[in-house]
Amino acid sequence: MAQKLYDFKLDERMELNVLIKSADIRVAKNGNQYIALVLADTSGEMPGMLWEANANQIKLFSAGTIVHMQAVRQVYQGKPQLKVLNLALVDEQLQLTANDFVQTAPMQKQKMVDEVSQLLFQITNPTWARIVRYLLQKHETTFYEFPAAKTNHHAFSGGLAFHTLSIVHLAQNVSKQYPHVNESLLLAGALLHDLGKTIELSGSIATTYTTAGNLIGHITLIDEEIVLAAQALQLDIYSEDLLVLRHVVLAHHGLLEYGSPVRPMILEGQILHQLDELDASIQMFDNAVAHTEPGKFSERIYGLSGRMVYHPTTKE
Amino acid sequence: MAQKLYDFKLDERMELNVLIKSADIRVAKNGNQYIALVLADTSGEMPGMLWEANANQIKLFSAGTIVHMQAVRQVYQGKPQLKVLNLALVDEQLQLTANDFVQTAPMQKQKMVDEVSQLLFQITNPTWARIVRYLLQKHETTFYEFPAAKTNHHAFSGGLAFHTLSIVHLAQNVSKQYPHVNESLLLAGALLHDLGKTIELSGSIATTYTTAGNLIGHITLIDEEIVLAAQALQLDIYSEDLLVLRHVVLAHHGLLEYGSPVRPMILEGQILHQLDELDASIQMFDNAVAHTEPGKFSERIYGLSGRMVYHPTTKE
Amino acid sequence: MAQKLYDFKLDERMELNVLIKSADIRVAKNGNQYIALVLADTSGEMPGMLWEANANQIKLFSAGTIVHMQAVRQVYQGKPQLKVLNLALVDEQLQLTANDFVQTAPMQKQKMVDEVSQLLFQITNPTWARIVRYLLQKHETTFYEFPAAKTNHHAFSGGLAFHTLSIVHLAQNVSKQYPHVNESLLLAGALLHDLGKTIELSGSIATTYTTAGNLIGHITLIDEEIVLAAQALQLDIYSEDLLVLRHVVLAHHGLLEYGSPVRPMILEGQILHQLDELDASIQMFDNAVAHTEPGKFSERIYGLSGRMVYHPTTKE
Amino acid sequence: MAQKLYDFKLDERMELNVLIKSADIRVAKNGNQYIALVLADTSGEMPGMLWEANANQIKLFSAGTIVHMQAVRQVYQGKPQLKVLNLALVDEQLQLTANDFVQTAPMQKQKMVDEVSQLLFQITNPTWARIVRYLLQKHETTFYEFPAAKTNHHAFSGGLAFHTLSIVHLAQNVSKQYPHVNESLLLAGALLHDLGKTIELSGSIATTYTTAGNLIGHITLIDEEIVLAAQALQLDIYSEDLLVLRHVVLAHHGLLEYGSPVRPMILEGQILHQLDELDASIQMFDNAVAHTEPGKFSERIYGLSGRMVYHPTTKE
Amino acid sequence: MAQKLYDFKLDERMELNVLIKSADIRVAKNGNQYIALVLADTSGEMPGMLWEANANQIKLFSAGTIVHMQAVRQVYQGKPQLKVLNLALVDEQLQLTANDFVQTAPMQKQKMVDEVSQLLFQITNPTWARIVRYLLQKHETTFYEFPAAKTNHHAFSGGLAFHTLSIVHLAQNVSKQYPHVNESLLLAGALLHDLGKTIELSGSIATTYTTAGNLIGHITLIDEEIVLAAQALQLDIYSEDLLVLRHVVLAHHGLLEYGSPVRPMILEGQILHQLDELDASIQMFDNAVAHTEPGKFSERIYGLSGRMVYHPTTKE
Amino acid sequence: MAQKLYDFKLDERMELNVLIKSADIRVAKNGNQYIALVLADTSGEMPGMLWEANANQIKLFSAGTIVHMQAVRQVYQGKPQLKVLNLALVDEQLQLTANDFVQTAPMQKQKMVDEVSQLLFQITNPTWARIVRYLLQKHETTFYEFPAAKTNHHAFSGGLAFHTLSIVHLAQNVSKQYPHVNESLLLAGALLHDLGKTIELSGSIATTYTTAGNLIGHITLIDEEIVLAAQALQLDIYSEDLLVLRHVVLAHHGLLEYGSPVRPMILEGQILHQLDELDASIQMFDNAVAHTEPGKFSERIYGLSGRMVYHPTTKE
Repeated sequence: MAQKLYDFKLDERMELNVLIKSADIRVAKNGNQYIALVLADTSGEMPGMLWEANANQIKLFSAGTIVHMQAVRQVYQGKPQLKVLNLALVDEQLQLTANDFVQTAPMQKQKMVDEVSQLLFQITNPTWARIVRYLLQKHETTFYEFPAAKTNHHAFSGGLAFHTLSIVHLAQNVSKQYPHVNESLLLAGALLHDLGKTIELSGSIATTYTTAGNLIGHITLIDEEIVLAAQALQLDIYSEDLLVLRHVVLAHHGLLEYGSPVRPMILEGQILHQLDELDASIQMFDNAVAHTEPGKFSERIYGLSGRMVYHPTTKE
Repeated sequence: MAQKLYDFKLDERMELNVLIKSADIRVAKNGNQYIALVLADTSGEMPGMLWEANANQIKLFSAGTIVHMQAVRQVYQGKPQLKVLNLALVDEQLQLTANDFVQTAPMQKQKMVDEVSQLLFQITNPTWARIVRYLLQKHETTFYEFPAAKTNHHAFSGGLAFHTLSIVHLAQNVSKQYPHVNESLLLAGALLHDLGKTIELSGSIATTYTTAGNLIGHITLIDEEIVLAAQALQLDIYSEDLLVLRHVVLAHHGLLEYGSPVRPMILEGQILHQLDELDASIQMFDNAVAHTEPGKFSERIYGLSGRMVYHPTTKE
Repeated sequence: MAQKLYDFKLDERMELNVLIKSADIRVAKNGNQYIALVLADTSGEMPGMLWEANANQIKLFSAGTIVHMQAVRQVYQGKPQLKVLNLALVDEQLQLTANDFVQTAPMQKQKMVDEVSQLLFQITNPTWARIVRYLLQKHETTFYEFPAAKTNHHAFSGGLAFHTLSIVHLAQNVSKQYPHVNESLLLAGALLHDLGKTIELSGSIATTYTTAGNLIGHITLIDEEIVLAAQALQLDIYSEDLLVLRHVVLAHHGLLEYGSPVRPMILEGQILHQLDELDASIQMFDNAVAHTEPGKFSERIYGLSGRMVYHPTTKE
Repeated sequence: MAQKLYDFKLDERMELNVLIKSADIRVAKNGNQYIALVLADTSGEMPGMLWEANANQIKLFSAGTIVHMQAVRQVYQGKPQLKVLNLALVDEQLQLTANDFVQTAPMQKQKMVDEVSQLLFQITNPTWARIVRYLLQKHETTFYEFPAAKTNHHAFSGGLAFHTLSIVHLAQNVSKQYPHVNESLLLAGALLHDLGKTIELSGSIATTYTTAGNLIGHITLIDEEIVLAAQALQLDIYSEDLLVLRHVVLAHHGLLEYGSPVRPMILEGQILHQLDELDASIQMFDNAVAHTEPGKFSERIYGLSGRMVYHPTTKE
Repeated sequence: MAQKLYDFKLDERMELNVLIKSADIRVAKNGNQYIALVLADTSGEMPGMLWEANANQIKLFSAGTIVHMQAVRQVYQGKPQLKVLNLALVDEQLQLTANDFVQTAPMQKQKMVDEVSQLLFQITNPTWARIVRYLLQKHETTFYEFPAAKTNHHAFSGGLAFHTLSIVHLAQNVSKQYPHVNESLLLAGALLHDLGKTIELSGSIATTYTTAGNLIGHITLIDEEIVLAAQALQLDIYSEDLLVLRHVVLAHHGLLEYGSPVRPMILEGQILHQLDELDASIQMFDNAVAHTEPGKFSERIYGLSGRMVYHPTTKE
Repeated sequence: MAQKLYDFKLDERMELNVLIKSADIRVAKNGNQYIALVLADTSGEMPGMLWEANANQIKLFSAGTIVHMQAVRQVYQGKPQLKVLNLALVDEQLQLTANDFVQTAPMQKQKMVDEVSQLLFQITNPTWARIVRYLLQKHETTFYEFPAAKTNHHAFSGGLAFHTLSIVHLAQNVSKQYPHVNESLLLAGALLHDLGKTIELSGSIATTYTTAGNLIGHITLIDEEIVLAAQALQLDIYSEDLLVLRHVVLAHHGLLEYGSPVRPMILEGQILHQLDELDASIQMFDNAVAHTEPGKFSERIYGLSGRMVYHPTTKE
């Protein structure tokens, strides 16, 4: 298999096809223009500079273009950066598209769709089952396309469904180990908890927050969707079944400071919150380790409140 | 006018009609039963003990009964407490009801209803006007009966509407002083901001939190009501008008730690939050001063994060 | 099966055998002596008062005695309390011992011993396997007898081993779901993480903190034990294997504020911390729900930072 | 009216007169010198770079000079920045002075002076009236010239008096709405609360903190001034009138963490604190909105603890 | 020497002269009156109950009376409490006064006066020397009589001067060890830092906060005194000498949260703050150890943020 | 004596010998290479840029090289920076070594060694004396060479021993002033408290954290060393003597948030903590003052939680 962006070492010269994710035209201190690029393939994204860019280059190499690049991997302020030596448009016959260069969930979409279908039968409480089925259907397209976050963790196409299924799997194991847990409620909460992100975020490419996302937030957005679904399904929104389902979803950030308007007061809400954190932190540790040499510490990770992560040499 | 509960001084003997708000039968250390009462009239509530209660007294003097009481005001752990000397049922011919002994808002209900009617015409944005009109109509009865809180501030019958109107008045003055403020939005937000308390709380007497109140909270509850109202009125819930109205309401506690899922990002949301705090703290200071002698400091007030309040002798 | 202490309802009269866990002689305000007792059976502990105690009763009914009790369940400050009507020594022929009245782990000791034996073979890294085997052997007796905490969670005989195995089971599932996790390290960390409690606490009955527990704390105490074990086994304490094992154990409280001298910087340390919190909070929710009627909220739980817990009526 | 600095859009070429607020000579990475300027007119300040500056330019274009500038508006790290194309000294015949390029309060100085004169008659308590009159007279010049802060809010010439009067207006409305408020005390407190800034800050141009400002702070500085005024007016500094006035001023930051040595314990102190915050946050929101396109969010605002501000498209 | 209050052990019967510090008449649950006393001698204070008090006893045994007491030491809620068996007025011929029963500083007043006189000559900066001399003279009587705090540390007659001298001694040693420290400034700051307590507190017996103490606080009160002294001595209050002296005094609590309006920005201010904390915490540890058996932990100490203190058996 | 790096003023041209502490090859925006250097002599370190570096220069001027430098002192972002004009290798005949350019403790090593030898005799408790002697011997070389921190305070060769002795001197004075302090324990704790830094840090030149330092931390590392020493000396690690010694060392950071697993519960632990902070903050103030002009404020100091430090002009 061809080498990817992140397969090349410091100071190594590379030649490969990449996607231009963004391209800013800037003026250097000597008055010349250069292009500050972000280049990507399925191994990740890396910034790169094309110095002394001429008018033609500026015109050709805009965001969304797929290019054949010659470059050298350097370091800038402790982070990898490319010195771009040459860019050329790729051969159209290769029929490459942006999707060939985007990180995706390590599980195929169809497999996720199938599993979710099966899961719905495991929610034995009819109220919760109907709400979940209704909302997953309503947001079907985006649920399998969106990332789970703008940055930090599962920030790739399909990340939302993938992260959701990771939590479902954890939830199933916990329900097996602690049999008094209400598995229906836990599964329903797990499937819905981050679904508001399909409204909060703009999509899987160049992800930003929408106006609704900033002003309302995904937790309240999914709560509203549940209430509207209940209305459409002619369910009583003040029945206990609907109160506990909304509570479990509203409380899943655990603390008011993290944006939940209530702290978990129901066992399944507490478990969902902790499994959500567990899966997210495993993903952040994995990211950090992937960019760190064995025997070394990563840089400080914002999403881990500034901790460094150690990449052990010991594997067993 | 007859003297009220709080008009009597320490060690003074009193004789007056009061409402029994609660009555707990307890066993003293010498084995005898006594009744731990909470007595109330329009000046407020005070605990009182009826020692050595006999079976007949225990039967007669239950919560909700109106009684003629002889008692002495004492102090227990720095707070007023009654030593109840005698209780008798009141003469039925007086036709007294519990409502005669309940603290109420210092503004008549009809006057509040009239003012709110007028206010609706000052919301010139049709989306906001329709939503507010719809929801005030839906919760009309409770809006004028409920307190604004379980304890702390405006914890009396009609307190919710009264607190709401206080904020409306402040909002009108602020809009006049800062003409770029969107007065329609500020008024709409002010009228709706605490309306969820009609679902969060149980009522104006012996107020407790409902299950919905504990599990969802009044901020999310009113947000859901707005969304359902929009649905009923066939308005687009993701239009900017509806996003900013919900944002202003959702953000009115100002900080995530205080239960808002988002911090105010719109001027009118910030103003509503600060006026809400201003009116609440004026009410808490007034309460504290009312129970403190001039020239003295009150006990520490929980709702003011443990501060004492000074009652100045200087009046001018 | 005979009814236990917690099977009786409020105001119900009971008659059963219980263990006196503590007995304080106090003087009532009328000058008479009474005994403030804590009574227990396998359903839990409850305080009780024996009023007007005579000299003989004071002499007979001391801590550790097993008695036949007649009593009424009452409520004092929102918590259950017994009014003890009569106490008598139990018939010696019943051959009851204190252990018959103590809460124990819901898993038999031998089963736990067997499982731990098997687990040692799953730690494939020889350094970690040797350390774990050495320390579990050294603290074998106490590991299966001690509670996992003085109060809050798993505060019963055998609670330490039981809590440890719960985490082991969670850890095994997580390792299966995330195959890059170093299962050996996670299991070794899980088995050792709370072993210092055998030095920090005094035992399973009337548990208190030892001087070493207060002055050093169980996290540092087990770290010291690991270092001494390494010394005894002639292992290099500054090898990576030993550094990461100690790190995982030292970091398992997650935050400096919770007593870990370092935050988790290794994936397995992060996971161990989160599984530890998960199991502890499930146990605290279960406790709270067990003492709360369906459809009601518990009192505020200290170990859950003052949250109330809701006991849903919905079971499915 | 001629276009101002902030009237030009991104990438637009401009030609206008501006004041050089600061000019730093720096060496570019290619060894050439350039001038890092801050340019200003009444629409605000903007940084600008004059690349490849020669010795003559370096000599001519120093801080305080008024220049005719040709430039292009660019963006640097998300903030506006000028690429300066040409600078020339302005025609002396225009008789422009620095004051023509400085932001000023949106209220004329004389109008503010007149209103303050009238206000003194509304302080009916003679002690407070004399203290306020004495201190406003003592600091008369600076009170009408200084900004209310170095940055964040009301950071313009006359900002101190303007911010003070805004709070006075709010205070008058609150006093009308809550008639038990001691308006004399609230007005006296409002007029004095930030007067210490005339000692804490260096002036309205290139504002910095003075040594006294850093070491003592404006809250203590005005308290000292009150005490000295009382001494000069032969008033008893330990009378209640003087204690409550000082308290209201000392407590106006509300929290110890914000530099008040005491939290408000008097109603008027609490109100002053909240009105101060209200006016300041309105000003900060206005600033943020002014630099943000409708329908967009501002950058994160330091003075609003890192919040973004939304500029609604809805105006009514 | 006769045995003191704290020399008697639990359950031991005692007979000795004590001062009644306070006497509250209360009604027991059986309807009888009793007196809740606080008794004191130079070993400390202890609460005590005189049950079934008759009218004569209630009249005789009021606060301030010196009595001959027979009592038994008991424990109530983990703290010592006396069961008072008999009280009688002391023989007047003994000529005992309240001062014979009050805890005092472990250093004679005259010795403290003498040392302070000497210290003034070591402040070589004339501005600081004049200010300190002026203020110590002005508050001479109270400085040697007042406690250093209402509770927590040095809460005894003469405690203020004694605590001040402890810090002076620490300051002298630090100045010797770090010769670049400005000893004059450090000594001046040490002598003045808590002098505001003579205005903040009511005196050495039944110490309470004054109105000025609550509303202004001792830090600002001494700062005002410095400014007035400077005025009286015709010194420029904005000279550096006076700014740094005030800063050192204002900043001595170290953090805004602890009531300093500024944090230490001058070396001597930082040192004064840390020595103040050091002496206070030594006194709190000593208090806690004095009430704890060797080998045991004290109860949780409020002034040490809830820590327990260990009393080691090891003495060397 | 020859002028040192920090003796030259802004814009002054200098010529002197310096050590290259680090040398990074970077590419300027114009495509040319330059060397980003850190230069040092005994007056401190300063960054410097050698623009347009040729291949020969890049090869010659690497970290560790001693060079004769011509440069001009400039300012970059408020901090001193050198524009390097010329570099040449120094004459080998001068026999200069890196040690001639490193900041060292202001006390000769031999003097420190001698004093520590004497100190051991003042620890009269044989357990503590043996442990301290054993560990100081074990880490003898590094104890006198290592810095006390990577940055912030005492970050120079010999800083660890020097900081330790400073605290010892403070401890001796405190023990003299408060005679009930256990001087043996305080001295033993002072001598050991930071000894773990010999394992936590990499050395005195280009100091970094070791893997053990990051994963375990110096507090736990020295605690482990004490336990191993006790083992080697056949002392009981759970004797009170060893518990209190470990406690004093473990608690010396004072707060859990600062990395101590326990807060000080023994007087000597509290004192050690406060003396440690005192010496560290004096060193940080001294550093800040040394880089600040009299009458000016330093930049914000990270180690002093962002405070500025004032350099008074007043010296007496």
